Amino acid sequence: MTDTDWGALAQHWLERLAACSEPGPGVTRLPFTPEHRAALAVLVALMEQAGLAVHLDDAGTLIGRLDGPTGAPTLILGSHQDSVREGGGYDGIMGVVLPVLTLMKLQQAGVALPFAVEVMAFADEEGVRFPTALMGPRALAGTFDMAALDMRDRDGVSLRRAMEEFGLNPDTLPGLRRDPAQVLGWVEIHLEQGPILEAAGQNIGIVTSICGIERHMVTFTGKAAHAGTVPMHLRRDALAGAAELTLAAESQAREFDGLLATVGALQVRPGVVNAVPGEVAMTLEIRAPDDTQREKAGVTLCRIAHGIAKQRGLGLEITRTYAQAATPCSPQIIDRLVKAVEAGNRPAATRIASGATHDTSAMAGLCSVGMLFVACRDGISHHPDEHVEPAAMAAGILTLERFLRQLQ
Amino acid sequence: MTDTDWGALAQHWLERLAACSEPGPGVTRLPFTPEHRAALAVLVALMEQAGLAVHLDDAGTLIGRLDGPTGAPTLILGSHQDSVREGGGYDGIMGVVLPVLTLMKLQQAGVALPFAVEVMAFADEEGVRFPTALMGPRALAGTFDMAALDMRDRDGVSLRRAMEEFGLNPDTLPGLRRDPAQVLGWVEIHLEQGPILEAAGQNIGIVTSICGIERHMVTFTGKAAHAGTVPMHLRRDALAGAAELTLAAESQAREFDGLLATVGALQVRPGVVNAVPGEVAMTLEIRAPDDTQREKAGVTLCRIAHGIAKQRGLGLEITRTYAQAATPCSPQIIDRLVKAVEAGNRPAATRIASGATHDTSAMAGLCSVGMLFVACRDGISHHPDEHVEPAAMAAGILTLERFLRQLQ
Repeated sequence: MTDTDWGALAQHWLERLAACSEPGPGVTRLPFTPEHRAALAVLVALMEQAGLAVHLDDAGTLIGRLDGPTGAPTLILGSHQDSVREGGGYDGIMGVVLPVLTLMKLQQAGVALPFAVEVMAFADEEGVRFPTALMGPRALAGTFDMAALDMRDRDGVSLRRAMEEFGLNPDTLPGLRRDPAQVLGWVEIHLEQGPILEAAGQNIGIVTSICGIERHMVTFTGKAAHAGTVPMHLRRDALAGAAELTLAAESQAREFDGLLATVGALQVRPGVVNAVPGEVAMTLEIRAPDDTQREKAGVTLCRIAHGIAKQRGLGLEITRTYAQAATPCSPQIIDRLVKAVEAGNRPAATRIASGATHDTSAMAGLCSVGMLFVACRDGISHHPDEHVEPAAMAAGILTLERFLRQLQ
Repeated sequence: MTDTDWGALAQHWLERLAACSEPGPGVTRLPFTPEHRAALAVLVALMEQAGLAVHLDDAGTLIGRLDGPTGAPTLILGSHQDSVREGGGYDGIMGVVLPVLTLMKLQQAGVALPFAVEVMAFADEEGVRFPTALMGPRALAGTFDMAALDMRDRDGVSLRRAMEEFGLNPDTLPGLRRDPAQVLGWVEIHLEQGPILEAAGQNIGIVTSICGIERHMVTFTGKAAHAGTVPMHLRRDALAGAAELTLAAESQAREFDGLLATVGALQVRPGVVNAVPGEVAMTLEIRAPDDTQREKAGVTLCRIAHGIAKQRGLGLEITRTYAQAATPCSPQIIDRLVKAVEAGNRPAATRIASGATHDTSAMAGLCSVGMLFVACRDGISHHPDEHVEPAAMAAGILTLERFLRQLQ
């Protein structure tokens, strides 16, 4: 089979899996649903064709295992089976299909690896159905909070009940914890969900770190006023202050490589054509591969906001509503992935900090982690138009194959 | 009676009129309602005490007339009886009470004016009940559009039916048109609705012009994107473009005396914490006492918006949704009002361009117009906290008295 054949085979299986969806545009496959069950049946068939021993653990993770020599540690590959509502057919699920096909390819080539490999399809990474996520990898790392079992979906069904009705026993989740000494590491392959690889003309990129994230709720309070009766120099315009901070966040982030700052939501009160805005509530999100860099940017932008408020005579309230530390990928795994990508006279690998969270974030609680990105069309993800070229998937399989062979 | 007494008397009548309101905070008095009827009864009593001949015309305008010598022309004073919902007790109605008290004062002093004076209480200036306004002055100027009679309030009642049930005959409106040759001019006294006089420590100001207004709907279109996966230099952030235009509008208006520019409403799509804004729709309102200045500012800001869009790779759509020409006040009337204000060793009169529209705007279709502003507390208007000090109202009566005596 040629690389083209492997890309086409990946495409074939992903189409079968995309059919495991609620009706409507794109793919909607939430955890512990009939669509999840249907996808597992397809994945079991694929894994069994690849010669893997398959089982479903009590977190709903489907695991296909290729044994290694007795006592050899295990390398874990995988991603998640679930999608957002009306999402695409690649996000997550491609990271299950490509490793299984890689193992199929290695076995067809008669390669026996000196370690065991498990490919995992986690139940829930998107967190769409329940206000929690990453249950599968957290159970393996021993970081799952059992209180999350009481969370309910929008129909009032608890996570516990949804899992039980799916045939799982959530009480046994603490027993899923793995011994870190028995795990070689974790590698995830995932579509980029951004435009960097496409712009660079590359199929595969190496993730250096999963960015840390902090979010602030910023409220400027001025004085609402008639837009016809208050001269410019007597105004206390909350929106003008918010506009200054929006531009400051942008220029701050442009100044430092890897730093991202976004004002995504902004509400104006009273919000009518003929009134000077009296209050603006806005979100400020900062992401960076390095926590020190991110926290420094947060402090700088808060200081800038206070300066704007003081200069304009505005009230200001800033609340940090969320913070999540960065997950650096293992330098050893990065090196091996770079070698795998750069083999065969390819151009130098593109290194990317992942701005989005992935299963890799939770697997870092168990072992060394690494991650590959595959180019996607127009940077589109979480949308029915999400698309990955079969050639890019073939490149993913080839990269994983080289990575596994190197580990021999 | 001292000035203090006249201020207290104005306060007394305005309190009686404020009671003519729907229940709830502040004053709610819409046209052709039981509250309108109640206010007219109070005004008739006041006008009759002042020795005026009272009648209600078919536009719902209450007119109190003090005859002059046979064939002498008429000076018209007045304002509107209606309020916004949950508004204050001064906006409009004070401009009826103060002229009537001024005529009362002149008659008590035995002054016979060489012209007739009419004080008018127009039914509807705020345009809260029906999507039209200024019917009273438009009928006098012959600019009322009879098609507006078919407009309906939120209960489905047409303006025609509301007027008929109030005892009026809307079919006779064209006959209300006055002969300009018989009208000396129009002077309105109104609370400022802004903070300028209070900041200047003055009770009375002279309006030089009623600003023209233009409104634009501006839509920047970028590309919505995941806030974690798209690096800063590849973003097309619609909100960043909107922020630049917001600040450009502010600095443009600050540069030119009298010019006002306001971004009052702004909506962000998708408007979530973790997405780069893909579309922002915003309003841009420009007011200026001079139409050329306003139109120049509009052209400049549109050019700036196009520059921002080009530089950021954004789509841009600008629609001018509204335009209203400025109404300059008569230089002769301004001069006489200035003399009246500056009499008795007062400091130089403050001249203000009115950013808000008033009955004066429509009366300009009939005759020369002038307008006085009275200081209000904290610049607050259209709110239950709206307040004018009795001393400021006494200054208003004194100013009108001097103005009328000068015209002898």
